[in-house]
Amino acid sequence: MIAKRTGRVTLPSEAHFLAETKEIMERWGADALRDSDGTKLDDELKALDAKIYTTYFVARGHNAFAKEHMEECQQLYLMSKRCTAVGEWLKICFMDGYFQEQVIPDYLHAPKRWWEVMDRTTGDVVPTDAWALDMRRHLVTIKAEPFHEYTVSFLVYAIWDPTQMYNHITNDWGDRPHEIPFDVRQDCSWRFAKEYLVQWLKDNPSTDVVRFTTFFYHFTLVFNDRKKEKFVDWFGYGATVSVRALEEFEQEYGYALRPEDIVDNGYYNSTFRVPSKHYLDYMDFVQRFVAKKAKELVALVHEAGREAMMFLGDNWIGTEPYGKYFGEIGLDAVVGSVGGGVSLRLISEIPHVKYTEGRFLPYFFPDTFYEGNDPVPEAMKDWITARRAIMRKPVDRIGYGGYLSLAYKFPAFVDYIAKVTDEFRLIYENIRGIRPYSGLKVAVLNSWGALRSWQPYMVAHELRYKQCYSYMGILESLSGMAVDVTFLSFRDIRENGIPGDVDVIINAGDAMTAFSGGEEWLDEKLVSAIREWVYQGGGFLGVGEPTACHANGRFFQLADVLGVDKELGFTLSTDKYFTEMQTSHFIRSDRTEPFDFGESMRNIYALDETVEIIEYSNDEVHAAAHPYGNGYGVYLAGLPYSFANTRLLLRTLYYAAHRPENIRQWFSSNPACEVHAYPDTGKYAVLNNTPQPQDTRVCDGEKWVEYHLREGEIIWDIPVA
Amino acid sequence: MIAKRTGRVTLPSEAHFLAETKEIMERWGADALRDSDGTKLDDELKALDAKIYTTYFVARGHNAFAKEHMEECQQLYLMSKRCTAVGEWLKICFMDGYFQEQVIPDYLHAPKRWWEVMDRTTGDVVPTDAWALDMRRHLVTIKAEPFHEYTVSFLVYAIWDPTQMYNHITNDWGDRPHEIPFDVRQDCSWRFAKEYLVQWLKDNPSTDVVRFTTFFYHFTLVFNDRKKEKFVDWFGYGATVSVRALEEFEQEYGYALRPEDIVDNGYYNSTFRVPSKHYLDYMDFVQRFVAKKAKELVALVHEAGREAMMFLGDNWIGTEPYGKYFGEIGLDAVVGSVGGGVSLRLISEIPHVKYTEGRFLPYFFPDTFYEGNDPVPEAMKDWITARRAIMRKPVDRIGYGGYLSLAYKFPAFVDYIAKVTDEFRLIYENIRGIRPYSGLKVAVLNSWGALRSWQPYMVAHELRYKQCYSYMGILESLSGMAVDVTFLSFRDIRENGIPGDVDVIINAGDAMTAFSGGEEWLDEKLVSAIREWVYQGGGFLGVGEPTACHANGRFFQLADVLGVDKELGFTLSTDKYFTEMQTSHFIRSDRTEPFDFGESMRNIYALDETVEIIEYSNDEVHAAAHPYGNGYGVYLAGLPYSFANTRLLLRTLYYAAHRPENIRQWFSSNPACEVHAYPDTGKYAVLNNTPQPQDTRVCDGEKWVEYHLREGEIIWDIPVA
Repeated sequence: MIAKRTGRVTLPSEAHFLAETKEIMERWGADALRDSDGTKLDDELKALDAKIYTTYFVARGHNAFAKEHMEECQQLYLMSKRCTAVGEWLKICFMDGYFQEQVIPDYLHAPKRWWEVMDRTTGDVVPTDAWALDMRRHLVTIKAEPFHEYTVSFLVYAIWDPTQMYNHITNDWGDRPHEIPFDVRQDCSWRFAKEYLVQWLKDNPSTDVVRFTTFFYHFTLVFNDRKKEKFVDWFGYGATVSVRALEEFEQEYGYALRPEDIVDNGYYNSTFRVPSKHYLDYMDFVQRFVAKKAKELVALVHEAGREAMMFLGDNWIGTEPYGKYFGEIGLDAVVGSVGGGVSLRLISEIPHVKYTEGRFLPYFFPDTFYEGNDPVPEAMKDWITARRAIMRKPVDRIGYGGYLSLAYKFPAFVDYIAKVTDEFRLIYENIRGIRPYSGLKVAVLNSWGALRSWQPYMVAHELRYKQCYSYMGILESLSGMAVDVTFLSFRDIRENGIPGDVDVIINAGDAMTAFSGGEEWLDEKLVSAIREWVYQGGGFLGVGEPTACHANGRFFQLADVLGVDKELGFTLSTDKYFTEMQTSHFIRSDRTEPFDFGESMRNIYALDETVEIIEYSNDEVHAAAHPYGNGYGVYLAGLPYSFANTRLLLRTLYYAAHRPENIRQWFSSNPACEVHAYPDTGKYAVLNNTPQPQDTRVCDGEKWVEYHLREGEIIWDIPVA
Repeated sequence: MIAKRTGRVTLPSEAHFLAETKEIMERWGADALRDSDGTKLDDELKALDAKIYTTYFVARGHNAFAKEHMEECQQLYLMSKRCTAVGEWLKICFMDGYFQEQVIPDYLHAPKRWWEVMDRTTGDVVPTDAWALDMRRHLVTIKAEPFHEYTVSFLVYAIWDPTQMYNHITNDWGDRPHEIPFDVRQDCSWRFAKEYLVQWLKDNPSTDVVRFTTFFYHFTLVFNDRKKEKFVDWFGYGATVSVRALEEFEQEYGYALRPEDIVDNGYYNSTFRVPSKHYLDYMDFVQRFVAKKAKELVALVHEAGREAMMFLGDNWIGTEPYGKYFGEIGLDAVVGSVGGGVSLRLISEIPHVKYTEGRFLPYFFPDTFYEGNDPVPEAMKDWITARRAIMRKPVDRIGYGGYLSLAYKFPAFVDYIAKVTDEFRLIYENIRGIRPYSGLKVAVLNSWGALRSWQPYMVAHELRYKQCYSYMGILESLSGMAVDVTFLSFRDIRENGIPGDVDVIINAGDAMTAFSGGEEWLDEKLVSAIREWVYQGGGFLGVGEPTACHANGRFFQLADVLGVDKELGFTLSTDKYFTEMQTSHFIRSDRTEPFDFGESMRNIYALDETVEIIEYSNDEVHAAAHPYGNGYGVYLAGLPYSFANTRLLLRTLYYAAHRPENIRQWFSSNPACEVHAYPDTGKYAVLNNTPQPQDTRVCDGEKWVEYHLREGEIIWDIPVA
């Protein structure tokens, strides 16, 4: 790491803003400068005593090259609309609904070889001699079964980079050229990418940090014919596909992928899908390729004496930082956007890099920085939401993005960030490399495990979805809770059993999703392993529709552990007598707010009298605990993020782990405050997580101390002997 | 029919109540007298000028016989609790949780031959050499896979009739003998049943109508070890099982049923289960047997010059009045309890009998007839709720049950029933045998079809279940609506197509239940047939989770018809743009109340811009219509019964049938009132369905007429030319 000075803060800047930049650098103690979307650093700025980050695009923004190699454009498999045959012949205009400035059909590779027409009523592939293609009209004609639904899965070339397309359309950039994404799996593109970087490093001597934005393949983002978003999957491998990739895959794996392996009924292997063996193979194949190629580029950066930083977003597919091959890339740093505790931990826990950086909100854009608006509340909310996660595992640097000239017009904001940066540095000095006190170790169990650490339930990055927030709250709560968190996949348990240090396993999600697990739960090895582990003292927390897959007389396959199941109608004939709440149960003992299970879950009932019903309303159980051997199963109907629910989860975890008394260790009586202790340093910190003053009493396990905290305050203290 | 005098009304009476009985007979125009549970008619009553009904039990109440033939007791297959093996050996006390005064294990027939130990974690049968039975302790010991769940499916003898058991325990009858149910499939029992009836007919010369209560097999009703209901299924075939039945079944069908065919994961083939081929075979087998035997008893009754009436309840299993074999029994009449329009139609539509009788509420019991309570409101509610169904298809007689001496103490009640009985007779005279005007023909489509006409969503007779009322409301609405109603099974459509006179098909229920259809919808013939029919102009109304079975990229297999599907998480990446309501849509055009979809349904979204969204809230669609070819698909999230929802359904049906304008034919502007017209007689009736006065305007298709109706009033009128 080339440290020009201390500071741990990155500032965006822009041309012709030298004096103010210097002033703010001083105020915020910034030691790095970056460009942003729409800004460039001029030479005077680059000459300042700061590290210079420069955004770098590998696979777009080089149209002179790209236009000469349109056969090396990136590709996708797309599915047409579902069309119903109303007679013997069906015509499908397969490009209907797609945006022809973004994607065009690939007619270079034989469609009969690479495309698939599917009968979606039966799930069968239509034989190639039963359909014909009219390339001029982008039309497939099918010899159909009347009143079956059909789709065409077809290959396209992507001729517009999705991020530039989004910005272009959103900002109405008119005739600015469309940046064409090319595929480094193709020979010319790869040669170009390397040679260009070598030259660029020569041309940009003042750049200290090459900020890759990002490498090769954009997450799936497809627009519709009205120039609006049609499909977005932050995890989507859609744009990694090409005929060459498919051929290389077949050569290596000994079997060919079908279009349907990628198209997947039009779900395109959403992270909500329990992944198929084929898709997992394909991901692995892409990850290895991306790591290998990215490693070569990073080596070039290092040869030029610079650092290589990756932005976690845009063209990040295949670089998964928690994946098997990420370490091989050899990156110095990762930077990512912080919208709360979950995204903070997503960045701060990334292994194999020298440092991580969180880009905080608000972005210095006119949507927040306009006359009459006060940007401080948003900044404070973002900071204190992320701060509790920093207390568990800090990023190494923080930064901001956008137009510094805009932020500069808001002195109160500049003051507040000065405070934040100081507070961050103090936290970092106090806890860097120090293990925080953790009362428990929690494992989040789903189909993805460690690969998608801190990323379950995400669709598009950081948007709120009705179907997600009641589960996302669990992760947000955990991100700043005094517990260790790990992510396990079903395969991990199948292959290696349950790690010995785990106290509580959490399985949370809607039925049949990758987060709940679906048919994974029909594996007797998996359910037996968890039952045995709970029986011997483990805790199992199910949220929503945990372990759900209807079979063998149960919906929740671990209903015996959880003590509850969901009524699907089939057991209405069985009397349900167990409805009495334990209103003073440990798990709800200090709750004063009404319960809030978010979207909640219906028709959950207790199996027998051994179930401790914690919340019962509307003729349903929403929270329950159930002794199982020496362990506990606990059920919650949902857990949107709030202080009260973070407390509920904390109590739930201690109860599930069968040691409720340990909750007193570094406990805050007021759920709006939290305590983080660092036994190796002898210090602890009390945090006010609200923008209002708070009083709380803190217990170190035995004694109680009273604290009065100002808005958002953090107090560092040392236990009194 | 032996008519002693007109009246169409049946009165319960009791010994030593002659004068009052005569008085009320006169007031209510009663022409029949019956005994009830706990009452007997004395000779003076029997000598009155009225038909005498006498309750008759075939298979219980003859303990002298039964005790000598305990090996001919009725049998059931029961499933033990689910028990988890925590080591290599698992002991299951299979009688745990059962009431040993009701059932005892059958050790007469080799358990290794007739029982089954199931591994419920894998769904596999445990080999008989891997378990041992200790008959003394009712204990099965299993060589188990650790942490698998197991159950024992075992045969028991039922030694207490469930209805008598219920009354005995509820009324604390102490040491009154337990009535033992015997099985007429066994030789001695059948001989006894016949001989006893022959003698009984001789001994009871004043009985005109033998009221069978009922024939042989009680619906499944099993108590727990706390003497409370454990399992109740009004449709359950549990008590029809016997070793002899199983052997005869195998001989006839060429394959043996397994215990699991009956136990069915502990669901015992609830009507909510899509029935298996084996279970359908078994039902048919039982129905044929019951019809054959019941026919012999009815013949004896007829030989003695009496009528045979069946009570629709208690031991009614196998007599299904809409089944294939019911007509063969040769009954004169069926009587059943009326709790509303659905149960009225359930009785009044029964084919193959000379007359039907509805027993109205309230029952003359102290729970309603106590000092200080007014029984009239309950009576009025029951009457006007059932009356709208009577207007479509009347029962031939009405009656009451319980202690007449109690009712007699409430003169206002006696007055009100006098009014009701007159009103009934007038309706009956006006519409008997006359086809009411119907604007449409509606088919309710589910796994059961005609066999369970008017019986979908029922668990225990007439109890309200959280999981049912939002669907039951559809039937209650239809029961008094000016449309024809038929019930279709998936098999009907598969074998015979959709009847030509059907205008709208309704599929309503929770996913995977027999009422929604589950995997039936993966049959391409079924979905293609319905698509084609709608395309050519049919209407398809889906309620709740219609056609739901996740496959081929859809949850609702007819999402293309309905225009909506349910988000399961897999398509969160696909943008959902279609959320705008058509607030003046025909279907909601006269709704003034807030929408009430009951339990409603979550995460329903519109597929595209062709969907007419009728109600959208909480980021979900709850009502929508969708043109499909010349027809329409319509979706509703649920339809609990109310006047407003009856109106909503009426509009939905006309809209789905693509002739909204026809709704004006015999239309009431006020949804609390309804019109029924009888074109063949030239009359129509306007009903006030509330206990308050109502004003309404009635349209005969062209002209409007104003009506002012007193509470609950019915006005008969003739169209003005």
